[in-house]
Amino acid sequence: MPTYRAPLEDSLFILNDVLNIERHNNLPGFADATPDMIEAILGEAGKMSEEVLQPLNEIGDKEGCIWNDDHTVTTPKGFKAAYDLYSESGWGALPFPEEYGGQGLPATLNAAIQEYVSSANMAFGMYPGLTAGAAAALVEHATEEQKQMYVPKMLSGEWSGTMNLTEPHCGTDLGMMRTKAVPQDDGSYKITGQKIWISAGEHDMSSNIIHLVLARIEGAPEGVDGISLFVAPKFILDAEGNPGERNALSCGSLEHKMGINGNATCVMNYEGATGYLVGTEHRGLKAMFVMMNEARLGVGVQGLAQSEVAYQNAADWARDRIQGRSISGTKFPDQKADPIIVHPDIRRVLMTIRSFNEAARALVYWTALKGDLSHRSDDDAVREAADDLMGLLTPVIKGVITDKGFDNTVMAQQVFGGTGYTKDQGVEQFVRDARIAMIYEGANGIQALDLVGRKLPSKGGRAVQAYFKEVGKFCSEHKDDEQMKPYIEPLSKALTDLQSATMWLVQNGMANPDNAGAASTDYMHLFGLVAFGHMWAMMAHTAQAKLSNGANGSEKFLENKLLTGKFFMERILPESAAHLIRIQTGAETMMAMDAESF
Amino acid sequence: MPTYRAPLEDSLFILNDVLNIERHNNLPGFADATPDMIEAILGEAGKMSEEVLQPLNEIGDKEGCIWNDDHTVTTPKGFKAAYDLYSESGWGALPFPEEYGGQGLPATLNAAIQEYVSSANMAFGMYPGLTAGAAAALVEHATEEQKQMYVPKMLSGEWSGTMNLTEPHCGTDLGMMRTKAVPQDDGSYKITGQKIWISAGEHDMSSNIIHLVLARIEGAPEGVDGISLFVAPKFILDAEGNPGERNALSCGSLEHKMGINGNATCVMNYEGATGYLVGTEHRGLKAMFVMMNEARLGVGVQGLAQSEVAYQNAADWARDRIQGRSISGTKFPDQKADPIIVHPDIRRVLMTIRSFNEAARALVYWTALKGDLSHRSDDDAVREAADDLMGLLTPVIKGVITDKGFDNTVMAQQVFGGTGYTKDQGVEQFVRDARIAMIYEGANGIQALDLVGRKLPSKGGRAVQAYFKEVGKFCSEHKDDEQMKPYIEPLSKALTDLQSATMWLVQNGMANPDNAGAASTDYMHLFGLVAFGHMWAMMAHTAQAKLSNGANGSEKFLENKLLTGKFFMERILPESAAHLIRIQTGAETMMAMDAESF
Repeated sequence: MPTYRAPLEDSLFILNDVLNIERHNNLPGFADATPDMIEAILGEAGKMSEEVLQPLNEIGDKEGCIWNDDHTVTTPKGFKAAYDLYSESGWGALPFPEEYGGQGLPATLNAAIQEYVSSANMAFGMYPGLTAGAAAALVEHATEEQKQMYVPKMLSGEWSGTMNLTEPHCGTDLGMMRTKAVPQDDGSYKITGQKIWISAGEHDMSSNIIHLVLARIEGAPEGVDGISLFVAPKFILDAEGNPGERNALSCGSLEHKMGINGNATCVMNYEGATGYLVGTEHRGLKAMFVMMNEARLGVGVQGLAQSEVAYQNAADWARDRIQGRSISGTKFPDQKADPIIVHPDIRRVLMTIRSFNEAARALVYWTALKGDLSHRSDDDAVREAADDLMGLLTPVIKGVITDKGFDNTVMAQQVFGGTGYTKDQGVEQFVRDARIAMIYEGANGIQALDLVGRKLPSKGGRAVQAYFKEVGKFCSEHKDDEQMKPYIEPLSKALTDLQSATMWLVQNGMANPDNAGAASTDYMHLFGLVAFGHMWAMMAHTAQAKLSNGANGSEKFLENKLLTGKFFMERILPESAAHLIRIQTGAETMMAMDAESF
Repeated sequence: MPTYRAPLEDSLFILNDVLNIERHNNLPGFADATPDMIEAILGEAGKMSEEVLQPLNEIGDKEGCIWNDDHTVTTPKGFKAAYDLYSESGWGALPFPEEYGGQGLPATLNAAIQEYVSSANMAFGMYPGLTAGAAAALVEHATEEQKQMYVPKMLSGEWSGTMNLTEPHCGTDLGMMRTKAVPQDDGSYKITGQKIWISAGEHDMSSNIIHLVLARIEGAPEGVDGISLFVAPKFILDAEGNPGERNALSCGSLEHKMGINGNATCVMNYEGATGYLVGTEHRGLKAMFVMMNEARLGVGVQGLAQSEVAYQNAADWARDRIQGRSISGTKFPDQKADPIIVHPDIRRVLMTIRSFNEAARALVYWTALKGDLSHRSDDDAVREAADDLMGLLTPVIKGVITDKGFDNTVMAQQVFGGTGYTKDQGVEQFVRDARIAMIYEGANGIQALDLVGRKLPSKGGRAVQAYFKEVGKFCSEHKDDEQMKPYIEPLSKALTDLQSATMWLVQNGMANPDNAGAASTDYMHLFGLVAFGHMWAMMAHTAQAKLSNGANGSEKFLENKLLTGKFFMERILPESAAHLIRIQTGAETMMAMDAESF
């Protein structure tokens, strides 16, 4: 049976020591997030994740969701009780505005909690995750009346939410969408069409399900500029705002998937369902895309979460499993063999994953904090600068953390040998679950294109220039610090590689856009390396400062932090050079072959 | 539904044009392998794989094997009929000596066939694959009487075979083995113990199952030098050599696994089962290890096979699926969108996989040919040199081709977007099936240690020196050929990296063995890059020669070959530098943390 321990100490180190989020206590909601309060909240979230959600993870995978003849869906045993507890404890309301029933706490804190939930039970976490996404879209775009009607009950968990974008013939290219909306005399619309891969589209845990649906109003222009956003509840609200008449929409079937079996992935059939326009007509896709940064950050967190829980279980196994002897001489002569953690190649795997997890966690918090600043600061310049960086880092977080997070689950599985391939230790589930995060919410190839084609050139490259300046400034400030040399020198080198790659893109991507496409995935991963390196340099600096100024019992934690960062700088960050070579190779060879020859 | 086409043209190009195996027609069995005969045999194998085995692949995954109350195992629908056809067609006998019912054809040819079978249906291919492994062990180590008793009926498929090594507490470290063998007055032994992960340990396709079992004779020395090899048939042979009395061994349960569900992975309980010593007592592990090179080559082929079939399906999907427009301008204005193969990032994925598949196929054949030479040449020096290289490349083939082969199935799955995560297209099965090849027959970390700790230093480094000489000679011979520059220059650079890494290992691995362990996986992958680069340079040279001398209608095939090789040289081979950096970093940082801190 797999186990899970929420990485509380690491979360607190990043939030309090590295990011020092207390200095933002002038922001709405941040004053409540004192170090004591943060510790209490994260402690509770960790406890729930460890004790309630994690034990349901394997059951969720094995039982899966069941589609019934009456088009209802039964979730795995225990999910409903866990959902009630999650809701009653207020987790669904944490980062939302107080006027709609939220607690107004930082989204940064919420990102930390979502990691714990997702490590413990990714399939479960998606149910409240989708509700949060739908609620956020309503808060941003709906009328005040709509917000009051739907949002409070979504935040309390009484109702849940979904996002309906994909259709069988269009996923990435939503301009081809066919689902149509016909205006009715009462101002509502009748929605007809089929949506697929709708996570949490139907289930038995909430008394209503609030679907956000993209559709084309009859007569709307073709393409993405003719798509509108609608809210279509499973049960239409009566005059008192309670679930009333059953709407003409239902789950036609469940997908059979590689993983996340505990989450209901639905084919949703809209058969003249009643829906209400949200925001401006024909501007639905834009409305959805405003939410995209948060949603993509959330998917990145899932990649980190699976990597973390896989790491923990692999480390436990490596300490317990005895097999063979250390090549540098027997370490446990009283045992028949040494535990496999004595083997350098096992440590290489564990350190690789660990050095990713800690950097990814820091990067998620760092970026989520930019998100909070972009929404809550009262200074226009601060908001704008934070929004730039959040937008820039979002595809990096989504694409790189889910790619590497998946790789890490595979590496962790390898530590188990044959046992890892059986269903006995639960580690193969982490692999299957983690795989989806690379695909949904914009496949990672799309993230790379978003970074190279949209985020880089946006506003004359303002975001990327600001980012280079921030990382470069950190390097300059610490370059003469002897202790920091093992961190700053590799980071400076990787930053130079990223700057060269960016320059190359500017020069060659305009001349031939295929060069940008050919470089995109490597560029995204090169960016990720630098971003992780930046986090490691920041963490190393904080750890050294704390060790000098009195670590107060956390010496070991801080020394391990410095070791793990050193490993990253020595062994992982130098991959930047290979990415740069590939980027500079250009598109010519890969575009030369005709399609039939593949 | 996934599809499969055996890559016949590529197989023939490598066998006939690149390796020119006709020049070895003085070897036993090779005279029969004329180009016409090879084409006919491979054509038949391809047809069977495409038409019989591939359609059963999905059924095998979904139905799996069923363990019955009487300890028998039922294989998926259609497997028995396919097994009969496979056997009757003589595929099981192809590379074996004629005196035991074999056809005496080259093992090189057999490697090609095994790729097709495994691409079509990996779980099915394991049944005859295990029989071949067990038969080969008997041919090598059993008495003439034992060979005559068992081998012909195994080669005909009437009986099947297994290898029983692993026990619950020992996989890699077989010295801890507990299964015991008690000598009986009639010269037989009673075997008692539990073996796990026994592929094809019990099934309903053959009338007897010949188990090869490692066990410790009562009173034998501890450790690996006290293990003996036994043959223990499911039905003990009667005086006429027919299956008689049921032996005291049975399948206690089936493992529940991530994939290869069509293959029965058995817990085998030996409860005083009758077994017969094979070879010398206490030398069983050595006997098994002689077979290891062939078995590991076979697992490498599985990695290639899954990569190939995943590639083919991803390429088909990329040609058919329309989504978005080419960034360099619309390519199919008459369609609602362009097929996704116009996107550079999709081509990057396809070219990456393709450039691996073709190099891996060549390397498998090249190494299998060394195996044939090592067994069949009448020249001692040729046999010895070939055996050196086969031994050296075996861990590279097993470790690198299965690691990268798995990565490629994941990349191919990504091309499908969300569809790839559902069970609809069958591509997620390739990922789950391919995963096991990194683990069994010696986990890939063990392959890396075998390479660094055993194969490199063996006989004063003779094998690796011979290998460097062979690759270096090819580079020197073609370095002034303008057409070859794009292939020779990158190969020379990567070879230099590999030589530097080897030198570093010699100097630092002896001083501190942990340095060798810490470098091992990177060294194995660096070696793999050079080996693939060598194959690409050879293939490019052959393709250019054929294009100059009259390509006879294969111009397009040859031009695509040159393009694919160029892609490999530009984008994949330069990764050698990152591996070298990591190798030279040493073990210090990764060994510094105490076990509890992980």
